[in-house]
Amino acid sequence: MSADIESRVTADDHQALKLWLRLLACTTRIEDQIRDRLRREFGTTLPRFDMMAQLDRSQDGLTMRELSERLMVTGGNVTGITDQLEAEGLVERQAHPSDRRSINVLLTPAGRRAFRKMAATHEQWVVELLAGWNAKEKTQVYEQLAQLKTHLMNTKSKES
Amino acid sequence: MSADIESRVTADDHQALKLWLRLLACTTRIEDQIRDRLRREFGTTLPRFDMMAQLDRSQDGLTMRELSERLMVTGGNVTGITDQLEAEGLVERQAHPSDRRSINVLLTPAGRRAFRKMAATHEQWVVELLAGWNAKEKTQVYEQLAQLKTHLMNTKSKES
Repeated sequence: MSADIESRVTADDHQALKLWLRLLACTTRIEDQIRDRLRREFGTTLPRFDMMAQLDRSQDGLTMRELSERLMVTGGNVTGITDQLEAEGLVERQAHPSDRRSINVLLTPAGRRAFRKMAATHEQWVVELLAGWNAKEKTQVYEQLAQLKTHLMNTKSKES
Repeated sequence: MSADIESRVTADDHQALKLWLRLLACTTRIEDQIRDRLRREFGTTLPRFDMMAQLDRSQDGLTMRELSERLMVTGGNVTGITDQLEAEGLVERQAHPSDRRSINVLLTPAGRRAFRKMAATHEQWVVELLAGWNAKEKTQVYEQLAQLKTHLMNTKSKES
């Protein structure tokens, strides 16, 4: 990481900008590592892993709309990933129990087993990647991020 | 942000995983806001803005290889963005001063003016988005991230 996104900071840049570029550099570095490892060790992608993680939490499955919202990707992408996972027998589509016009996506038993196996390994990667902080520091940053997240939830997009 | 990537955390998840998902949720939220605002206010994209930011720092321009490394995108993307910015008169390609087989990309004077205008507005957005932390908290998080970044630089990809 000799020259990364932080390399564009110049001496007179504002504190907030420097902090943001460092936050982004760390997050990108971790995400790139996880993406590489998922590909090499499980032959899968981050969007596929993220979708299976959302489905693993839900016994009743999620609608395409719920998946799109939680994954913050376009409906088109969710449909494409669902098609792939369905072809591999990892998810299935069912009519929504209370709204027959809606389609629910669920993990199959094989999908749930495959996800749980990946998730255990993924967690070890995260433990290792965040080992630059001890437990106390992790707690501190976790609380500081809670404060930032509350602020961000109150920051309306200028669109609306 | 009623249900986002953090919504997949369950009670027995490890501290590191919870921290990572919160870090990712905050960074994604800020990046999405910046992406939306760049599109609406300047009709541009985050990769275009990031490339112009790297070029703005360099008087002599950067090679395509340097741009790829700094932007962590594929060479193909850098070529595509350079083509677009060149067609709009914002960057130009020149033979590299010391290596005639290499091509340097530089901001044109119009490109530099356009970037500086966007950058000033961008910085105000970042100040606003990070206003959930006061100056002291910003300094703390900045230092904690330095520690994490050092650790990440020493964490080799399992590939090599």
